[in-house]
Amino acid sequence: MVAMPVHRKIDVVLDSVKRLQRMGATANLLNLLQKQHPADLAQVFSELNERDRHAAVSVLLDRNSRLAMEALSELGPEVAASLLADRSAEEIARFVQELATDDAAAIVDYLPEELSQAVLELMRKKEGADVGNLLEYEEQTAGRIMNPNVFALSEDMTVAEAIAALQASRDVEMVFYLYVVDERRHLVGVVSLRRLLLVAPDTPLKRLMATDLISVRVETDQEDVARQVASYNLLAIPVVDEENKLVGVITVDDVIDVIKDEATEDIYRLAGVSSDDHIFTPARESLRKRLPWLWVNLGTAFLAASVVKLFEGAIGKVTALAVFMPVVAGMGGNAATQTLTVIVRGIALGELTWSNSRKALVKEALVGVGNGVGCGVVAALGAWALQGSAALGGVLALAMIINMFVAATAGTLIPLTLRALKVDPALASSVFITTLTDVFGFMSFLGIGSLFLRFL
Amino acid sequence: MVAMPVHRKIDVVLDSVKRLQRMGATANLLNLLQKQHPADLAQVFSELNERDRHAAVSVLLDRNSRLAMEALSELGPEVAASLLADRSAEEIARFVQELATDDAAAIVDYLPEELSQAVLELMRKKEGADVGNLLEYEEQTAGRIMNPNVFALSEDMTVAEAIAALQASRDVEMVFYLYVVDERRHLVGVVSLRRLLLVAPDTPLKRLMATDLISVRVETDQEDVARQVASYNLLAIPVVDEENKLVGVITVDDVIDVIKDEATEDIYRLAGVSSDDHIFTPARESLRKRLPWLWVNLGTAFLAASVVKLFEGAIGKVTALAVFMPVVAGMGGNAATQTLTVIVRGIALGELTWSNSRKALVKEALVGVGNGVGCGVVAALGAWALQGSAALGGVLALAMIINMFVAATAGTLIPLTLRALKVDPALASSVFITTLTDVFGFMSFLGIGSLFLRFL
Repeated sequence: MVAMPVHRKIDVVLDSVKRLQRMGATANLLNLLQKQHPADLAQVFSELNERDRHAAVSVLLDRNSRLAMEALSELGPEVAASLLADRSAEEIARFVQELATDDAAAIVDYLPEELSQAVLELMRKKEGADVGNLLEYEEQTAGRIMNPNVFALSEDMTVAEAIAALQASRDVEMVFYLYVVDERRHLVGVVSLRRLLLVAPDTPLKRLMATDLISVRVETDQEDVARQVASYNLLAIPVVDEENKLVGVITVDDVIDVIKDEATEDIYRLAGVSSDDHIFTPARESLRKRLPWLWVNLGTAFLAASVVKLFEGAIGKVTALAVFMPVVAGMGGNAATQTLTVIVRGIALGELTWSNSRKALVKEALVGVGNGVGCGVVAALGAWALQGSAALGGVLALAMIINMFVAATAGTLIPLTLRALKVDPALASSVFITTLTDVFGFMSFLGIGSLFLRFL
Repeated sequence: MVAMPVHRKIDVVLDSVKRLQRMGATANLLNLLQKQHPADLAQVFSELNERDRHAAVSVLLDRNSRLAMEALSELGPEVAASLLADRSAEEIARFVQELATDDAAAIVDYLPEELSQAVLELMRKKEGADVGNLLEYEEQTAGRIMNPNVFALSEDMTVAEAIAALQASRDVEMVFYLYVVDERRHLVGVVSLRRLLLVAPDTPLKRLMATDLISVRVETDQEDVARQVASYNLLAIPVVDEENKLVGVITVDDVIDVIKDEATEDIYRLAGVSSDDHIFTPARESLRKRLPWLWVNLGTAFLAASVVKLFEGAIGKVTALAVFMPVVAGMGGNAATQTLTVIVRGIALGELTWSNSRKALVKEALVGVGNGVGCGVVAALGAWALQGSAALGGVLALAMIINMFVAATAGTLIPLTLRALKVDPALASSVFITTLTDVFGFMSFLGIGSLFLRFL
């Protein structure tokens, strides 16, 4: 169920922010903003109009830059970068250092090229090197989303030494697992924080640590990272380089963002919407993003129309053919969408693999024929009732069975083929499928109709 | 990007399992299975055929029931219940007690009614009361998915006492936050495990704990729970009853499952697939689940066909109308799907609220007109080239603009209306939208075409 709360705590905050801004009561405004959780602030900012948002962010940045940056980071790197873009490189460099390295890198990456370089240059002496390094990894890989400030312990330490090291490192946030490395920083084990509490202080970590730990490589796809964290119920996963040296950590909150983003991406791509097109993307920009997809669809619609054109003669004689031809095409499209969705989601969730794809194909083909018979019979009766021609009903049923079988097999094979070609199956499948079910729908119905024209 | 790994570690395990089963080498099989992580075992089980899966699960259940149950739990409660259903109530009661209460409850809920009651009866003396209680909460609420065995400390304890209590409670898994309660078990604060390590042992918890903590009520919708855990970056969230008494905890791994399930549900519902229809759901069952949805669509397709029927006379005179009418209807459907997807996802992610829905409507209407003009002009030129009639092109363009405006406004208003009626917008929107864009598409194109018939 999609829940949309009617009354929200932040609505009260939002109203107060707007009122204080109208009154120009900056001190009170700051006071109010500073009491909020970064996630709530982000929500408030996102619902202000552009001018008010900029003003509120600006005021908070200058007073409490950590809180402001945490809220901006929640808004997403693209929005954050746009709200920072009118500041000097010096200011931005100082601001982004309030954030964890992975979040800072994501924002710097969205700044205008020149500004981004200047900020990295300024940061180089401190953490900037880290930020620059992260940006050298491919997008959507573990290297890009990891936090390189990972807390690690030496395998030669005792529990007491480990606790002391932990107490000294106040800046390390969200420590759940303590990773253990050898003298050359190779990842060799893991100890949970809770286990440290349960054993004698002089126990060596070597004896305590678990050695069969799960890690990912810097180049691992972020979706693969998310899948491992989710299926092994981890709170964090260590990232290693090609020599198995510990270089970073990805925590579960980042994984949740990946899972949500990838789900949105899949839903959007199935519908032909680009993944950065949101509710409040300006109309002009949404238009620019959606039109190309619609033009591709228009091309395929004309392809289908030219199939209909081949049968203009038959339609001129029996206009009832024109009445029912969209039924065949449309129902094929509906059935294909069902199959396509199950297959694409199955690939995304890792349930569909090469080895079991034949089984999936056979199943979907069976369902396709079943759907064709189930819908064809009902449609035939409907056409008979509406048009008074049993023969027309028969043609309709036959065409529908053929088209739904095509829909089911294509709905399985097209995403699998795209996958083999390393194209995201969610991206391009639906346009191929619609074309195919339209073309086959018109061709089978009008073709069979032409053959039996004198009975109709 | 959807990543599908070509070589997987578990493929090796899977092959070995199959080989050992063929050879009847049960001891070796057990040995191999016992070395696997529950999540990997679940993957292996899911790729075996039904008979082999049942045999492998059965062997493992009798030897290492905890591991077997953990793997079954990963497979999902429905599958787990079906694999247990041939056991006696006594055995099942013993098996499910290996699991956390929320996971046990989910499985018992899917057993056949009579067996489920018998199992609950047997468990009543021990944890069964808990399991039974969980099942009394509404589905998809916090109460249903929470773990009632929450570790809580009294506010009168010192840090040393808290650590001693933690050491004594070996069975509590996944402790991240230590919740603090007063003498009547009202939730009053929270302390992180890490903070316990950083202060003097005689510090009272009262002085250490944070009191502005975030909790949810037992009746809170699970999607709302997930949204809070995600936006506040929590590892766990406490669940309280109407008196603010602590009754359970929901951990981030359960939240990840909720996020994935809700995303699948939304994707499926947009495509008219029921959420328990997966790749390897038997064909007969998938058919039973998909046909009703196709019949609904068939009804709407006939509604659209009856609109075409009104204009049979015009089509008889100008058959080119039949050639281009599916273009108008189909393109309206494509544009509507884009809008619908952005709106439904916006509601699901909590970005679209009542207060900003007017802004969204205006924006989508603008995009709709823009898309209509952008596609209409191209389509008009195409029709002119293909059919040699400028007038026909003009009719096509005009009809397209009207239909895409209708598509955009309906694509926004329909999900919002369904939401107001407390119906999931993802569920029913697409069928309404398709009907509307088909009916309006045919009506506007054939209607305008009839008016200008003598120019075509």
